[in-house]
Amino acid sequence: MSEIHRASTTAPVNIAVIKYWGKRDPKLNLPTNSSLSVTLSQADLRTHTTASCSSSYPSSDSLLLNGSPQDVSGARTQACFRELRALRKKIEEQDGSLPRLSEMPLKIVSENNFPTAAGLASSAAGFAALVRAIANLYELPASPTELSRIARQGSGSACRSLFGGYVGWDQGSAADGSDSMAFEVAPAEHWPNMRAVILVVSAAKKGVSSTAGMQTTVATSSLFAARASETVPKRMQEMQKAIKEKDFETFAKVTMMDSNSFHATCLDTYPPIFYLNDVSRAAIKVVESINVAAGKIIAAYTFDAGPNAVVYYLEEKEKEVAGLFKAALGDKEGWSGKRGDAIQANSEGLEKAKADSGVALDLLKEGVRRIILTGVGEGPIKTEENLIDEKGEPIS
Amino acid sequence: MSEIHRASTTAPVNIAVIKYWGKRDPKLNLPTNSSLSVTLSQADLRTHTTASCSSSYPSSDSLLLNGSPQDVSGARTQACFRELRALRKKIEEQDGSLPRLSEMPLKIVSENNFPTAAGLASSAAGFAALVRAIANLYELPASPTELSRIARQGSGSACRSLFGGYVGWDQGSAADGSDSMAFEVAPAEHWPNMRAVILVVSAAKKGVSSTAGMQTTVATSSLFAARASETVPKRMQEMQKAIKEKDFETFAKVTMMDSNSFHATCLDTYPPIFYLNDVSRAAIKVVESINVAAGKIIAAYTFDAGPNAVVYYLEEKEKEVAGLFKAALGDKEGWSGKRGDAIQANSEGLEKAKADSGVALDLLKEGVRRIILTGVGEGPIKTEENLIDEKGEPIS
Repeated sequence: MSEIHRASTTAPVNIAVIKYWGKRDPKLNLPTNSSLSVTLSQADLRTHTTASCSSSYPSSDSLLLNGSPQDVSGARTQACFRELRALRKKIEEQDGSLPRLSEMPLKIVSENNFPTAAGLASSAAGFAALVRAIANLYELPASPTELSRIARQGSGSACRSLFGGYVGWDQGSAADGSDSMAFEVAPAEHWPNMRAVILVVSAAKKGVSSTAGMQTTVATSSLFAARASETVPKRMQEMQKAIKEKDFETFAKVTMMDSNSFHATCLDTYPPIFYLNDVSRAAIKVVESINVAAGKIIAAYTFDAGPNAVVYYLEEKEKEVAGLFKAALGDKEGWSGKRGDAIQANSEGLEKAKADSGVALDLLKEGVRRIILTGVGEGPIKTEENLIDEKGEPIS
Repeated sequence: MSEIHRASTTAPVNIAVIKYWGKRDPKLNLPTNSSLSVTLSQADLRTHTTASCSSSYPSSDSLLLNGSPQDVSGARTQACFRELRALRKKIEEQDGSLPRLSEMPLKIVSENNFPTAAGLASSAAGFAALVRAIANLYELPASPTELSRIARQGSGSACRSLFGGYVGWDQGSAADGSDSMAFEVAPAEHWPNMRAVILVVSAAKKGVSSTAGMQTTVATSSLFAARASETVPKRMQEMQKAIKEKDFETFAKVTMMDSNSFHATCLDTYPPIFYLNDVSRAAIKVVESINVAAGKIIAAYTFDAGPNAVVYYLEEKEKEVAGLFKAALGDKEGWSGKRGDAIQANSEGLEKAKADSGVALDLLKEGVRRIILTGVGEGPIKTEENLIDEKGEPIS
């Protein structure tokens, strides 16, 4: 029997504070603007992926995600496979003693440690793990920067999950996308006390669905061009400076303004795209109340393409931010475990907030299904824990 | 006893299809962009105002609205009084035989035929009626255009209620506001079959309130400048052409896009301003379904600074548009009377729409409190029906 080659990694989710929305090249996933994200801890949210290859495998590549076979024939997955195989082929050609892994079928097994139904963009962690695992399998000398260029072709925001900490994605200008890659703004340890509480909105409260499409925004929004060409470039500079100086107030204000700007261009799309609903609005209102009560900005909301709120705050303000949400939403799933146990329910803060945002708090109680507690974390981590056994079978 | 001088008028509500939002001069109510509206029929929605003056009145001016005394000391009301008195003074100076009305205290009584609680911007009709009634009282030779310049200082959008039909408001460029006035795009009889159904959202469903402020948008939205300087000027041209050519599809598309653009700049404000809620989103979805079912655009939504939807359509599409809403919301207040009786509940259309927008229809049923049926109408109408009697007392 032929040898089974295996390598495994975990990769993180990232939540942008300057949003990616709009492609200048849909095939290559080249964005109309740069973006910036915080990589979240893999202790809380991660994709675990084992890539393997063997000449004994059935001839076509395969991918099993959370136990379900996935279609790998799509152009995006194929682009990642093709690019990684080409890099492997190059080193095989330089060293004839290396096994010809680039010619063997790939078998990939992937698992998320978070419910897909949570509505978190899992494709970023998924493609980052896929690319990193295959790069490990192929023993490629490629840097995270080079791998981010490949992962980008799988899912745009996946490129940012190749790094930990605070990560930018430079839109680049080359037509072939060769300079559209992620870069490290600062590692997690530079500003390790960044935390996030994610308010996951019940499916029942999601309301009217939108037929999303960032390309419809590019084509129809009269305000989009100003966002891409003026607003975001300015904010990219402000945000990098804020992160380098650990200036939370600026970080938070730019985060909130950029989330609003992104959703504004969605609303300005024809037909309009809505991701924020009344529960999201309530989360915004409660964050505003928390900041008013603190007399300065200590919490920042941001929303991806869905109603779930991600609220960033610093560990030292845990009581004022997460503690208030715990007092309001303590009966929801997600408060157990090491992070949740450490958070004190801030009933006093909640009482004060009720005066200003009682309706909003009621809406949150009604509409939030679960919470996720997390914080800034590392980039992909190599692991010896394989999801495929020595015989090439998925371990379940 | 001194003579009681009286004059009365009614004035209409208008609902913009290209929105006014942002002032370049807050004191003079000079806008950052031009706007355009449809004047609605006074049979359905109107303010009725009697202006009177007498040397026997108490020395200070007064205003009674729906039976409640109003503060007239505000700069906006004072500006209207001052400008109208100056015009009267001029003709008194030219003709010494005229009574010195400009020197007498004003007593004004006003009544709306629609509930204030309906959340309709009543200030436009209110200031238009106030200015028109005083102009009638003073027998001013002023044209609606000249009066619109005065009413604008009371409430910006009031200037458009001095005309019937389809009305533009030119932003103007003079620092003193002398060229920021309303103008007739087309009279009501040019395109008389324009109808509107207004979906009034329950107070209970209004959700999180916003601290509104168009000046906050001007100051903080990074997208607002593009709207004011590029988007709106282009749409003003498209809209005037569509009205002149009675091209409903263009009229409707520009109406919807401009409503979305306005609310997008509200969302891009810091802190964000929300007027649309889940019920508003549901109305948008149902309008989209109606248009998809028709295979062309036969209905257009627009939202002012609140969650109520105004849906424009042409009389010949009454069954497809208003009829569908009647089938869905027939149990709400507002379907009785001449307009409502003529509308056939379109149960067949509703059944079809359910497949595409069942959730949205449920949200509408839950969140709409009443409907108002109306259509394009005339400008202010002089009336002999006074709300103040010969003795100077309000008639209740």
